Amino acid sequence: MPTVGLVAGEGGLAEVLAERIRAAGRRVVCVQVHGDPGRLPEVCDRYVHVPLDQALRGLQVLQEEGVRELVLAGKVDKLRALGALPGAAGLWPERARDRRDPELWPLVARLLEQAGLRVLPQPTFAPDLVAGAGLLAGRELDPREGEDLGLAFRVARQVAAAGIGQAVAVRHGVVLAVEAVEGTDAMIRRCREFGPGAVVAKVAWPGADPRFDLPVVGPQTLEAMRWAGATALGVEAGSTLVLDRPAFEAAAAELGVSVVGWAPEGG
Amino acid sequence: MPTVGLVAGEGGLAEVLAERIRAAGRRVVCVQVHGDPGRLPEVCDRYVHVPLDQALRGLQVLQEEGVRELVLAGKVDKLRALGALPGAAGLWPERARDRRDPELWPLVARLLEQAGLRVLPQPTFAPDLVAGAGLLAGRELDPREGEDLGLAFRVARQVAAAGIGQAVAVRHGVVLAVEAVEGTDAMIRRCREFGPGAVVAKVAWPGADPRFDLPVVGPQTLEAMRWAGATALGVEAGSTLVLDRPAFEAAAAELGVSVVGWAPEGG
Repeated sequence: MPTVGLVAGEGGLAEVLAERIRAAGRRVVCVQVHGDPGRLPEVCDRYVHVPLDQALRGLQVLQEEGVRELVLAGKVDKLRALGALPGAAGLWPERARDRRDPELWPLVARLLEQAGLRVLPQPTFAPDLVAGAGLLAGRELDPREGEDLGLAFRVARQVAAAGIGQAVAVRHGVVLAVEAVEGTDAMIRRCREFGPGAVVAKVAWPGADPRFDLPVVGPQTLEAMRWAGATALGVEAGSTLVLDRPAFEAAAAELGVSVVGWAPEGG
Repeated sequence: MPTVGLVAGEGGLAEVLAERIRAAGRRVVCVQVHGDPGRLPEVCDRYVHVPLDQALRGLQVLQEEGVRELVLAGKVDKLRALGALPGAAGLWPERARDRRDPELWPLVARLLEQAGLRVLPQPTFAPDLVAGAGLLAGRELDPREGEDLGLAFRVARQVAAAGIGQAVAVRHGVVLAVEAVEGTDAMIRRCREFGPGAVVAKVAWPGADPRFDLPVVGPQTLEAMRWAGATALGVEAGSTLVLDRPAFEAAAAELGVSVVGWAPEGG
């Protein structure tokens, strides 16, 4: 069966996908452009680390391995990526063009397609990571959290539709923090200064392409919540990937928090 | 001429308005509910500090002084206010109701009107504080800043329309940070970690009631920009108050930044 390419950024998603791809009987060639290798060199058949400013070399590796299908997994530091990519000038003809994520992903997709590579949806080899609707981990929401999460999802959808970020924190009807370029975990940790009790909603970009940047949560998300004293996490059912479910469930139980899958029509 | 009430929060606006009201020949009774007194006790005819959890006592003071018209000036720590107000339970029947600013101000207005008090637009006694369109201080925008400010204003208007906050920072087409409950200056300071070069757009709430919470900038805003290495500030022309114009202009010139009034139709 043909080799699958894995372009890895930061976070644990790439490792999980590598294992799943091999479990499906396919060979995995990993090009990591950002983040720590972790166990990737062990769980992939070939592992190459390519710094962002040599991203085109990554393409070469995939092509010399005969890769036609690939999966993208993990966060890339966008500010560094935009500074480092040698092709950035050509990709973005005006110096200060709009570089919000929903604008960028189609450009990345087109670039890869032009190189003859087909990007597969992230859950292709790991459909069991996708969060369903309802209680996912920990205790049930209390009524205050439920109301705050409703507001957090309404606001988070507006924030995502504006191309800003995917997550929002709310407490007692007040929007405490909005994720922009810093990432979800950093946004959650910021809430510590406003006192405990925040609820966090994390959503997909509207019209999200499941090949790119589906929301991911995992034990690290709960660690950020612990630091901030946040009590509930809502993720979009059907389009959020939950990493390391056993550790995630154990952490939620230990912290006494609530994690729910929010049905898109529920907001 | 009748006494004017001044309800003061944090920041320098209240002092400036107190001086202007007296310059207009009116007596000023100030009730401060948040923030440092600064020079308020000197520049007002009567000054009373009333902690937020005794806000109703502030109303009594205004009524015993025969105040019928008042001006609100300065930021209030919303999280503390909501926690402290004894009437909050009555005002917000559901525990976790929506408490975004555009929802709250009409409630405050109604409360004051029911007490027989008329809230005057903030610029009533100080129309010269209102920013006009065009270059306000410092050097001209460069083309990159102009493009980034265009995006920052588009995003800031969406953020304000969603009731989240009034300011957004952008660099090279990437949304670096969005203001929520932390306030504009804290949001600007946060941008330091992303490196220098941010531009900041600050807007009014859509359909802004000029009696409540017009955007205010002043030398402190530029101090936050200095810390973050931000290079340009755009404010909404016609609905932004600029404090301490001489010091503001001197600081902008010294920092080499650009401050512009952005025409509402310009975004």
